[in-house]
Amino acid sequence: MKSVAVVGASGFTGRELLHLLRRHRGVRAVPMSARADAPPRDSDTQPLDMARLGEFDGVFLCTPHGAAATLAATAVAAGARVVDLSADFRLRDPAIYEQVYGAPHPAPEHLAEAVYGLTEHARPAVRSARLVANPGCYPTSVLLPLLPLCQNGLLDEAAPIIADSKSGASGAGARPTERTHFGNVHENFLAYGIGTHRHTPEIHQQLGSDRLVFTPHLLPVFRGILSTIYVTPARGIDDAAVRSCLMEHYGGEPFVAVLPDGTPELRDVQRSNRCHIAAHASGPLIVLTSAIDNLGKGASGQALQNMNLMLGFHETEALT
Amino acid sequence: MKSVAVVGASGFTGRELLHLLRRHRGVRAVPMSARADAPPRDSDTQPLDMARLGEFDGVFLCTPHGAAATLAATAVAAGARVVDLSADFRLRDPAIYEQVYGAPHPAPEHLAEAVYGLTEHARPAVRSARLVANPGCYPTSVLLPLLPLCQNGLLDEAAPIIADSKSGASGAGARPTERTHFGNVHENFLAYGIGTHRHTPEIHQQLGSDRLVFTPHLLPVFRGILSTIYVTPARGIDDAAVRSCLMEHYGGEPFVAVLPDGTPELRDVQRSNRCHIAAHASGPLIVLTSAIDNLGKGASGQALQNMNLMLGFHETEALT
Amino acid sequence: MKSVAVVGASGFTGRELLHLLRRHRGVRAVPMSARADAPPRDSDTQPLDMARLGEFDGVFLCTPHGAAATLAATAVAAGARVVDLSADFRLRDPAIYEQVYGAPHPAPEHLAEAVYGLTEHARPAVRSARLVANPGCYPTSVLLPLLPLCQNGLLDEAAPIIADSKSGASGAGARPTERTHFGNVHENFLAYGIGTHRHTPEIHQQLGSDRLVFTPHLLPVFRGILSTIYVTPARGIDDAAVRSCLMEHYGGEPFVAVLPDGTPELRDVQRSNRCHIAAHASGPLIVLTSAIDNLGKGASGQALQNMNLMLGFHETEALT
Amino acid sequence: MKSVAVVGASGFTGRELLHLLRRHRGVRAVPMSARADAPPRDSDTQPLDMARLGEFDGVFLCTPHGAAATLAATAVAAGARVVDLSADFRLRDPAIYEQVYGAPHPAPEHLAEAVYGLTEHARPAVRSARLVANPGCYPTSVLLPLLPLCQNGLLDEAAPIIADSKSGASGAGARPTERTHFGNVHENFLAYGIGTHRHTPEIHQQLGSDRLVFTPHLLPVFRGILSTIYVTPARGIDDAAVRSCLMEHYGGEPFVAVLPDGTPELRDVQRSNRCHIAAHASGPLIVLTSAIDNLGKGASGQALQNMNLMLGFHETEALT
Repeated sequence: MKSVAVVGASGFTGRELLHLLRRHRGVRAVPMSARADAPPRDSDTQPLDMARLGEFDGVFLCTPHGAAATLAATAVAAGARVVDLSADFRLRDPAIYEQVYGAPHPAPEHLAEAVYGLTEHARPAVRSARLVANPGCYPTSVLLPLLPLCQNGLLDEAAPIIADSKSGASGAGARPTERTHFGNVHENFLAYGIGTHRHTPEIHQQLGSDRLVFTPHLLPVFRGILSTIYVTPARGIDDAAVRSCLMEHYGGEPFVAVLPDGTPELRDVQRSNRCHIAAHASGPLIVLTSAIDNLGKGASGQALQNMNLMLGFHETEALT
Repeated sequence: MKSVAVVGASGFTGRELLHLLRRHRGVRAVPMSARADAPPRDSDTQPLDMARLGEFDGVFLCTPHGAAATLAATAVAAGARVVDLSADFRLRDPAIYEQVYGAPHPAPEHLAEAVYGLTEHARPAVRSARLVANPGCYPTSVLLPLLPLCQNGLLDEAAPIIADSKSGASGAGARPTERTHFGNVHENFLAYGIGTHRHTPEIHQQLGSDRLVFTPHLLPVFRGILSTIYVTPARGIDDAAVRSCLMEHYGGEPFVAVLPDGTPELRDVQRSNRCHIAAHASGPLIVLTSAIDNLGKGASGQALQNMNLMLGFHETEALT
Repeated sequence: MKSVAVVGASGFTGRELLHLLRRHRGVRAVPMSARADAPPRDSDTQPLDMARLGEFDGVFLCTPHGAAATLAATAVAAGARVVDLSADFRLRDPAIYEQVYGAPHPAPEHLAEAVYGLTEHARPAVRSARLVANPGCYPTSVLLPLLPLCQNGLLDEAAPIIADSKSGASGAGARPTERTHFGNVHENFLAYGIGTHRHTPEIHQQLGSDRLVFTPHLLPVFRGILSTIYVTPARGIDDAAVRSCLMEHYGGEPFVAVLPDGTPELRDVQRSNRCHIAAHASGPLIVLTSAIDNLGKGASGQALQNMNLMLGFHETEALT
Repeated sequence: MKSVAVVGASGFTGRELLHLLRRHRGVRAVPMSARADAPPRDSDTQPLDMARLGEFDGVFLCTPHGAAATLAATAVAAGARVVDLSADFRLRDPAIYEQVYGAPHPAPEHLAEAVYGLTEHARPAVRSARLVANPGCYPTSVLLPLLPLCQNGLLDEAAPIIADSKSGASGAGARPTERTHFGNVHENFLAYGIGTHRHTPEIHQQLGSDRLVFTPHLLPVFRGILSTIYVTPARGIDDAAVRSCLMEHYGGEPFVAVLPDGTPELRDVQRSNRCHIAAHASGPLIVLTSAIDNLGKGASGQALQNMNLMLGFHETEALT
């Protein structure tokens, strides 16, 4: 049995991780709360003690960005393997971090070793990493359908890519705010952060290109992200070729399914670590649709998938 | 006092019209049901009698496509002014109609005189029309922000336009189906009809171009459509120029508002005939967002706006 | 034209009042905000100035209990007619107020003149009142069906009365809290405050009896209260007699409808000042069901109904 | 490995059973569809072949009442152990069945041997039963809190018991109907079947008394039932005594939890076989609240719990 800490156990991603870890046959999980004022959901929740982080084989950081970087540095130095669910180690360039998050990076010396943990595209590096930056929920839903197409040259490299993404309210966090008040979400829908959302630089970095335009929306559901992505195929490429490329790339993957027909629905991926992808022709473009649970493959599910690899468990342990 | 018939009073658009007409100070409304099996919602609902359609000053057709064309022909011949909420007279070319709806057009001789009633863009023609084809809900939400930009040359004419639209469940009609079952809509979200939706040719016709790619989605709300539209500006045009153009075009309009900041939300337009529009820069593109109530400006509200013009009432009567 | 102030314009009841007052043909409404930190919803919102309250013909108080009492005393002394939507003047006995609200009553000298404004049962007193205590939302939904039956001796006076009430989330207020977070309301349902809810003493006072047992529940809807009330009829009384009594009592009322068959649904009363009531036999008991909009007849609608009477307008002005 | 058939695999309870059985380590499940027109959800679904029912160790019947009785008789005669999720064998008296369901009982010769499978109250009989009548969802939520109190004499036997129950839309079945249309459930709430619901005789039979008054309501959620039950305690009994009795009775149960404080919420039991119960004093009465998932402990979960006992598996297999 290995031991892992879940730091930031009172938020949605921390609670989801603890829920998943109850089924894990190889680890014992200890919830820790970084906030003195957070109501402990679980009587076993312990106050965060940074001196103890090295006692754990693995540490999940479910704390806000900024705070996570310092904790990660401490835990890594003490010998724990760390999966950071915050944004702190996703952007490789500290200058971009400062621009996006409005403060200097708290632990830039660890940026170089951090592995961007989109598992299906980083398996060997994740296995040996001390520090994994768990991808953002929106980037996960956008990158999984796009990366194989970009890497195989199926897209027109001059044309913009448009990702129109819609996320459930759990993406906005457990803290009560105007935005998450029932009266503002229920029977409502809106776009936000057009042209300015913090996940855009993260997607650009992973695509190696800034030609992606990203628009997030707030859905009146609790769980799930559906991204509708518009790409211009390279000359001679049609939707069948796109589907084939995706099926070939993800054919052996336990958590990514490319649908032969139909379109992804949130309910087929909710409460799972799965990503469902489809591709359809529409006029001169190809429309990719992808669905994940933002707390599953978009956060805690993928974090556990990564930690499983880091600690030598089967990748799907406690995830199926 | 004038008299109007609402044919197809048991569906969502018929009921909405009757609800609006109760506040109208100049007309007496008679609900008529075309379906023998439809449960009358209103004890005043009369069975449809085609011989009587000429007794009315105005006739609203809330019946399915196909059936509406025949009723329209009869009513127009008998001297009534007709607003048809079905798709029957939206497409000018009967060959395209047959291709889209799978049957020959039932009354092609009336296609030439039918006015496409996107009110803000067809006021004089609507005023004198005998037959108005009320626009589809999705096309209304897409055309209102796009038309002024196309007409004023603000868009790159070579680039595709992408309309990613999300509609509440009332758009799928009152008849119980798999798609509208609570269990399939609630806490769910999906795209449908990618590349094949029947509203695409209607939008293409009105834009005078087939470079628009349209993807509809089913939202877990009852009322409202939000369209997120991605356009490539012509050289030298930025989001401020786009906003100016829209504000100038719609400055005097009672039902169309261009937001100086923020983004449209469904709740700000629900149960109204309003359309809220915003424009933001995002990378090389401009993102237009527009919100309407699909039963309001997207159907019954716009139908009444048109009928008000046809019968000589103030355009906003019973709509504010 | 008369002038009215709406103090506490940023909460749900204040906003609803301002929405209703826009349609009022006899008053000009001034929104005032008591909270420096509240985001003004309306650019016309003025900071609260107690010295000015006497300038208004009428003052609506949409502030929290405790604060309202002081404002009411000031406004009444300055000559304004006041409708207080808080709980401050609902309980006649200051000792019970202190027990329920945990602090001495801030203006006990005004308790005697305050009229409990369940309009249909207090019309003459409301007309001449300087200060109306607007009933709570739950009490309104419970008292309207019960009072005629109690007053006419149709109920067994020895048996308990059970009111099982279910309210939408708008009843919990606009301030973001754990309870009103989308994730805690959506796809959830629960009872709360069993045996201890603050509205129980208010209902007991108006019934003149403490034999009513009240249980509130939080519904995943935004607007509406449905109360299911179980009463034991007096000997010889059946459901038909109960319906007759209610129909006779409310026959001429513009806002209360007793259904001859079927049961009340929230959607039939949402966004209205109506109350729908039904009575059915069920074993030895009679089951009363009543539906209101908690922001309508349960708060702002009834407040305006009362103010209309106080200022000499038709009772239904801006409410139909 | 044992084999079980799930007959009626296209409805909500059939699908839920198949979902649960995928995790079962001791059985292989075969979905069968009784309806030629039902869309097969699972490509493995086989058409119903009554001659084959004897090949299975266990048969779950998820078919409508009436049809289930004939299938049950066939399967039992062929040697299979049967759990019938329909209402066909819940009422012991065929005369009451005929009165409630409007047709003579199709297999009255099997009524005597059918065991009413409220597992916690019928374990030994379920273990040896050939035919288990799985309890209704509402009755399960009402009987679990009530039975220990009735059996131990904690209730005043002369007073009526009131069960005010609220169920999610999945209780109304997968077939599209007016009642389950998104537009009729979402942002709505209503009582139905007051004094006439078919589950009332089932509850009366199990209580051995007809003094229970039952009112069902339709909640705008997909999963879950919350019942609020009002009982009059026997002389000298308070809420602490009621809680003690329930805790003692259910202390060792894997699926029933009596809450020491707080109240049950739907989200704590959704997607589980659990029942959460609380008891609070309220005036002269005790208020019991109980929450289950209507597709879990209210249907498919309890059905599997029963089948586990019948086939010799651990009772909790595939249920935790």
